[in-house]
Amino acid sequence: MSTQPSTRLETFPNPSRDADYTIRMTLPEFTCLCPKTGQPDFATIRIEYVPDSLCVELKSLKLYLWSFRNEGGFHEDVTNRILDDLVAAISPRRMTVHTLWNVRGGITAEVTASHP
Amino acid sequence: MSTQPSTRLETFPNPSRDADYTIRMTLPEFTCLCPKTGQPDFATIRIEYVPDSLCVELKSLKLYLWSFRNEGGFHEDVTNRILDDLVAAISPRRMTVHTLWNVRGGITAEVTASHP
Amino acid sequence: MSTQPSTRLETFPNPSRDADYTIRMTLPEFTCLCPKTGQPDFATIRIEYVPDSLCVELKSLKLYLWSFRNEGGFHEDVTNRILDDLVAAISPRRMTVHTLWNVRGGITAEVTASHP
Amino acid sequence: MSTQPSTRLETFPNPSRDADYTIRMTLPEFTCLCPKTGQPDFATIRIEYVPDSLCVELKSLKLYLWSFRNEGGFHEDVTNRILDDLVAAISPRRMTVHTLWNVRGGITAEVTASHP
Amino acid sequence: MSTQPSTRLETFPNPSRDADYTIRMTLPEFTCLCPKTGQPDFATIRIEYVPDSLCVELKSLKLYLWSFRNEGGFHEDVTNRILDDLVAAISPRRMTVHTLWNVRGGITAEVTASHP
Amino acid sequence: MSTQPSTRLETFPNPSRDADYTIRMTLPEFTCLCPKTGQPDFATIRIEYVPDSLCVELKSLKLYLWSFRNEGGFHEDVTNRILDDLVAAISPRRMTVHTLWNVRGGITAEVTASHP
Amino acid sequence: MSTQPSTRLETFPNPSRDADYTIRMTLPEFTCLCPKTGQPDFATIRIEYVPDSLCVELKSLKLYLWSFRNEGGFHEDVTNRILDDLVAAISPRRMTVHTLWNVRGGITAEVTASHP
Amino acid sequence: MSTQPSTRLETFPNPSRDADYTIRMTLPEFTCLCPKTGQPDFATIRIEYVPDSLCVELKSLKLYLWSFRNEGGFHEDVTNRILDDLVAAISPRRMTVHTLWNVRGGITAEVTASHP
Amino acid sequence: MSTQPSTRLETFPNPSRDADYTIRMTLPEFTCLCPKTGQPDFATIRIEYVPDSLCVELKSLKLYLWSFRNEGGFHEDVTNRILDDLVAAISPRRMTVHTLWNVRGGITAEVTASHP
Amino acid sequence: MSTQPSTRLETFPNPSRDADYTIRMTLPEFTCLCPKTGQPDFATIRIEYVPDSLCVELKSLKLYLWSFRNEGGFHEDVTNRILDDLVAAISPRRMTVHTLWNVRGGITAEVTASHP
Repeated sequence: MSTQPSTRLETFPNPSRDADYTIRMTLPEFTCLCPKTGQPDFATIRIEYVPDSLCVELKSLKLYLWSFRNEGGFHEDVTNRILDDLVAAISPRRMTVHTLWNVRGGITAEVTASHP
Repeated sequence: MSTQPSTRLETFPNPSRDADYTIRMTLPEFTCLCPKTGQPDFATIRIEYVPDSLCVELKSLKLYLWSFRNEGGFHEDVTNRILDDLVAAISPRRMTVHTLWNVRGGITAEVTASHP
Repeated sequence: MSTQPSTRLETFPNPSRDADYTIRMTLPEFTCLCPKTGQPDFATIRIEYVPDSLCVELKSLKLYLWSFRNEGGFHEDVTNRILDDLVAAISPRRMTVHTLWNVRGGITAEVTASHP
Repeated sequence: MSTQPSTRLETFPNPSRDADYTIRMTLPEFTCLCPKTGQPDFATIRIEYVPDSLCVELKSLKLYLWSFRNEGGFHEDVTNRILDDLVAAISPRRMTVHTLWNVRGGITAEVTASHP
Repeated sequence: MSTQPSTRLETFPNPSRDADYTIRMTLPEFTCLCPKTGQPDFATIRIEYVPDSLCVELKSLKLYLWSFRNEGGFHEDVTNRILDDLVAAISPRRMTVHTLWNVRGGITAEVTASHP
Repeated sequence: MSTQPSTRLETFPNPSRDADYTIRMTLPEFTCLCPKTGQPDFATIRIEYVPDSLCVELKSLKLYLWSFRNEGGFHEDVTNRILDDLVAAISPRRMTVHTLWNVRGGITAEVTASHP
Repeated sequence: MSTQPSTRLETFPNPSRDADYTIRMTLPEFTCLCPKTGQPDFATIRIEYVPDSLCVELKSLKLYLWSFRNEGGFHEDVTNRILDDLVAAISPRRMTVHTLWNVRGGITAEVTASHP
Repeated sequence: MSTQPSTRLETFPNPSRDADYTIRMTLPEFTCLCPKTGQPDFATIRIEYVPDSLCVELKSLKLYLWSFRNEGGFHEDVTNRILDDLVAAISPRRMTVHTLWNVRGGITAEVTASHP
Repeated sequence: MSTQPSTRLETFPNPSRDADYTIRMTLPEFTCLCPKTGQPDFATIRIEYVPDSLCVELKSLKLYLWSFRNEGGFHEDVTNRILDDLVAAISPRRMTVHTLWNVRGGITAEVTASHP
Repeated sequence: MSTQPSTRLETFPNPSRDADYTIRMTLPEFTCLCPKTGQPDFATIRIEYVPDSLCVELKSLKLYLWSFRNEGGFHEDVTNRILDDLVAAISPRRMTVHTLWNVRGGITAEVTASHP
């Protein structure tokens, strides 16, 4: 239903590779479109990972997430797509993507997907 | 005491079946009737599951939960019934249903049931 | 669109008529039906008044508000109807009815009506 | 229905009579009995006043409020009775008594009475 | 810089015209584009008014606010434009529009405009 | 020091015995008397259990807890007594009783007891 | 009952005397002794004033308030004494002292005194 | 003691001059140096104004506030200086600057200055 | 640097020795003196333990903690001393002492020590 | 890009070496510069450790953290550098450094690094 956003995720070398450490980024300003009705959905995205040789660059991550603005996507699909794109870009040791969607029809939905 | 609501739970194929991931839905607008007195009870329903081949469709879930509006049911019974209906519809890998009931007689009640 | 609920508001004599004092009651468990779609709406009702010769009895107020459960009504209409019924029952010196409606389509609505 | 509690409110001279100043006391542990059913009611009592020649002693106030424990009383009646007893004891320049009652039948009630 | 959104605000007759009463609507899901950079801005919109002969219909209001999604606009400009469009549609007795914008460069901005 | 309250805990058959599920009840309106001074103590009681063949009936639980109103009891003693009475009444698979006592002398106390 | 603390309040010239502006200082670490029992009392002190020709120096204010540590004093007395000492030191255009005392016997007390 | 920061406040024409409306900006990331000790102070700055012919541009405001980073200044002085610079730049109809300073020696300080 | 406070911790027999249960006490009104500067420090003390044959009596605990009022002590030292004194008095099966110290120089400190 | 701050971390002997206990320090006033743009970043630093023979002295820690004020540094780099410097200074049994960075471009970042 929706094509892959073309925005590129940029990376930089992990400055401290000897031990595991954790990076968590939270973006409460995610918006995309409902694939059924075309109406906007809103969500907070939380990404948590242990880097291996690469870290994701913050500004390109912001642009990547903003690129969903006029895309359609089911909650479950968007969550897994973000995880897949980030894993492809930086091959982290561990990563979790959590999406918290604003209430629709009285229901709040959350989806959590992890690698590996 | 209460008949099974006739509303049908609709499903769609899990878009990302290779790994376990978690979906949580919260509906703070649940209401049914007390089987003893006929007076309204109010609750927040929280459903959390790991899908297998099927996901539950959000709008049909909302209609299913609204169908309890004029049904009677003990707290323990309603909770287990929602769990059973959802398990029958989508055979999830794991599922938990949690109901949080508004205060009656100074007491707040919660019931949590899980599959398997 | 909706008929007047038949539940009766009961009253008792104001125990302290010499000076003005204020009574505020809050019911977070109000529900009625959307007159357009038939789907449930949820609201918190807050009633504040200065009694004259009569006070409204709490239990009959609860039953009166529960009687809207299967009635349809626009937010603006329900709020003004509750005000009118209470004023007719107890002729308060002053009264305000405030309704706070749960989010629908991303919008939370509130209506406030006062007498006189 | 309920007799006047016999506990005595003690007082001490206002240490700073030249100008108005305000004293507010909050007791979240008030309990009495419902005059209809005999079941316990719970409330938070807030008293705010500008003293004239006398202040109310804190410990005797606590004992006075605890003396309602096995008394019956409507919300409106209890509130006005506390105000009357305090005004009789210390003749304040201004006083307000506010009672906030725990939820019963889904309704929270508050009563506010003032002198003069 | 940005053209007027074409979405139409629908209205319905005020069901209770005899006295002033207040309607407040809050939409925390507003988004538009920064006119300088084209990057998304996010805001919560709060509209409060006293109706005269007309009320604004909730669903058309939602669509109207969503129509800014791909428009550019300064904070001050967007706020006054929403006020002007609503005043043109329903000629309220009084109206206030308040916009609360998400942090940019460490600064949170709010704009409040009123009629008359 | 204090005699056993005579109020009877009523039970009903567990409607869903095949699997473990959890029931939690919270009562923020518990009050008893200090065995040393006779002054009132206030607490919030939280009971969590996995039923076996019986569930405790909510209204009788409320009356049972209210029966401590004019009893004396140390915090540790009251908590263990409630646990023992409930275990005797319904023989749950697991049960925890938690009591949170209002501040006295600047100290807040909590007691947690479990079966088995 | 308690002697005047000897710590000196230091001042500095108001840097902006042409117009009124407001300074508010909050110290949540105030402690003194109960004049009846000798046991410690704890309070949060909030001081708000419009300076005239002098401002109070922050560090000397801290030491002044700490000097009550082993002094006795009724709530009403302490509040008015702080106000009087500050007014004597800097002759502000307006000043309010507010003291919020930790719960004793289930009661929270607040005292507010103003100049002029 | 501290020289005037050279950063320039930029402006743009008020898009809606016919009626008064209010703009509020909050920056919780203000830092400067203590003029006595050279140690860093931290504050939240809140600016609220009614524009006349000019509005202050948000990005230049951010840079202006950041320019205090290595400047010394008393709380009272910094607050009045920000007010003076903004009034000089945009001649607002009304403006208030409020600074809330992080705790030092157990004391939180706030300063509020207004024009005119 | 500081001598052992002489206040005695009193105990009473554990009323329910057959099984482990947990007691938690929180005192937000702890104060002592900085051993370097003599200035007051403030902390919240939380004590959690599983009693063996003895429980600590609440009032004597309060007096014991108040006895630090004019003692000096490093955070780490005070925490371990309280733990040692309580273990010596009641030989609990398990005990944890947690101290949370008010901000000094922009830093909040916490110390947690356990037995065994 | 940034040189090692020259501020020295001072230490004192662990007053209670026999058993493990935990010290946690939180500083919400950390600021450094973005290595790309030179603009200020703000963070809350939380350090948690189990001391071995040495504890870090609080005031020198404050000065050490303030020494980053005019340094540049990526989030990941600053976090690991603080951990390395503290481990070098006191050789703790265990240590975790957590940094929580203020929102930039709508994203909040956190980094957590541990030893060993």
